Amino acid sequence: MRESYNEQLDSVRSDLADMCRMAEEAMASATTALLTADLALAEETIDSRGQIDLLATDWEHKAFSVLALQAPVALDLRIMVSGIHIVADLQRMGGLAIHIAELARRRHPAHVLPSEVEAVFAEMGRVAVSQAESTREVLLTRDPELAAKLQTADEEMDQLHRSLFVLTSAPDWPHGVPAAVDITLLGRFYERYSDHTVEVAKRVIFLATGEFRSEDS
Amino acid sequence: MRESYNEQLDSVRSDLADMCRMAEEAMASATTALLTADLALAEETIDSRGQIDLLATDWEHKAFSVLALQAPVALDLRIMVSGIHIVADLQRMGGLAIHIAELARRRHPAHVLPSEVEAVFAEMGRVAVSQAESTREVLLTRDPELAAKLQTADEEMDQLHRSLFVLTSAPDWPHGVPAAVDITLLGRFYERYSDHTVEVAKRVIFLATGEFRSEDS
Repeated sequence: MRESYNEQLDSVRSDLADMCRMAEEAMASATTALLTADLALAEETIDSRGQIDLLATDWEHKAFSVLALQAPVALDLRIMVSGIHIVADLQRMGGLAIHIAELARRRHPAHVLPSEVEAVFAEMGRVAVSQAESTREVLLTRDPELAAKLQTADEEMDQLHRSLFVLTSAPDWPHGVPAAVDITLLGRFYERYSDHTVEVAKRVIFLATGEFRSEDS
Repeated sequence: MRESYNEQLDSVRSDLADMCRMAEEAMASATTALLTADLALAEETIDSRGQIDLLATDWEHKAFSVLALQAPVALDLRIMVSGIHIVADLQRMGGLAIHIAELARRRHPAHVLPSEVEAVFAEMGRVAVSQAESTREVLLTRDPELAAKLQTADEEMDQLHRSLFVLTSAPDWPHGVPAAVDITLLGRFYERYSDHTVEVAKRVIFLATGEFRSEDS
């Protein structure tokens, strides 16, 4: 029984990493679909929602049965409670990537992005995927130092996000309001995705230290 | 001991309702601050963040100790696990209301909104506050029928949200890109606030039925 309990705890960890990889892949393909106006890839990304949601629901069932049958305490309980939060963050990351793919699909065959902001979004996508990669490593290692690094990694994203406002608010912005509205929404999706990786990092720090700094919403 | 446990469970319920009331008040005052360009009210709303976050952190500590010391099962465990999700939703609702107040502060003494979209935002604020009121009632009563009603109440918000895109995307939109960008962000904040009330409703239905339909992110 004891070993099976440890196995359950291990699978909690690897399931979270698997979900994170899905959110990472969804973001990578959503960004490519956005930049290349690739309809098939956008649809493939959108279809991945079911998988991520299924994994989240499975994880919750598993967590519920661990809590009910094993009544974990101390660190094990913190792992389960943090996991409940982390699953919600990872699921939301997947959801945000899918929003990006949905916008690419809605505008197809047109490109959503005027060419002069493509580089910013390529960079936002790169940063987001790299943050998700670090998040996955943090989930597997529960390394508080790596988590602390991730916690500050969203500055790069914030800067990219701000640069979008500068571009669209310039008096000589030539692409009109609808393009600016799309860019505003997309910028928000990337920024929120990045925020969720930071939330996961905070939860892992909580696991290591027992202290949780509440979200700066 | 048993009575104290029941008291703890009762306080879990009333704490959630208290947090919901805070998120509701934050939305009401943020909307007024937005519509009247009231700087003092915007700042008051922004200052309420600390209170909401504190209540959320307190709740989590309380939940952790209930789980650790009482090892609840069945419905009691579902209440605790759902509560963890619900606290996150309520905290985020507060955060979104604060984002609205922050935008009102940033543009002060100017009004964020051109006069022709004021009515839409007044209505979005009214719908959001009314959804939060229903959410609070659902939290107090755990009435699955009321929760089911709340689950579909976001259609009104979606319609208002869509009407913003129609307005800002019209070829004769006279207020330029920066106003459209602000309106896009604000619309998203109201819509997400509304989404979170729906999420809470789903969690309460899960409490009543043991079945959870995953988020349509």
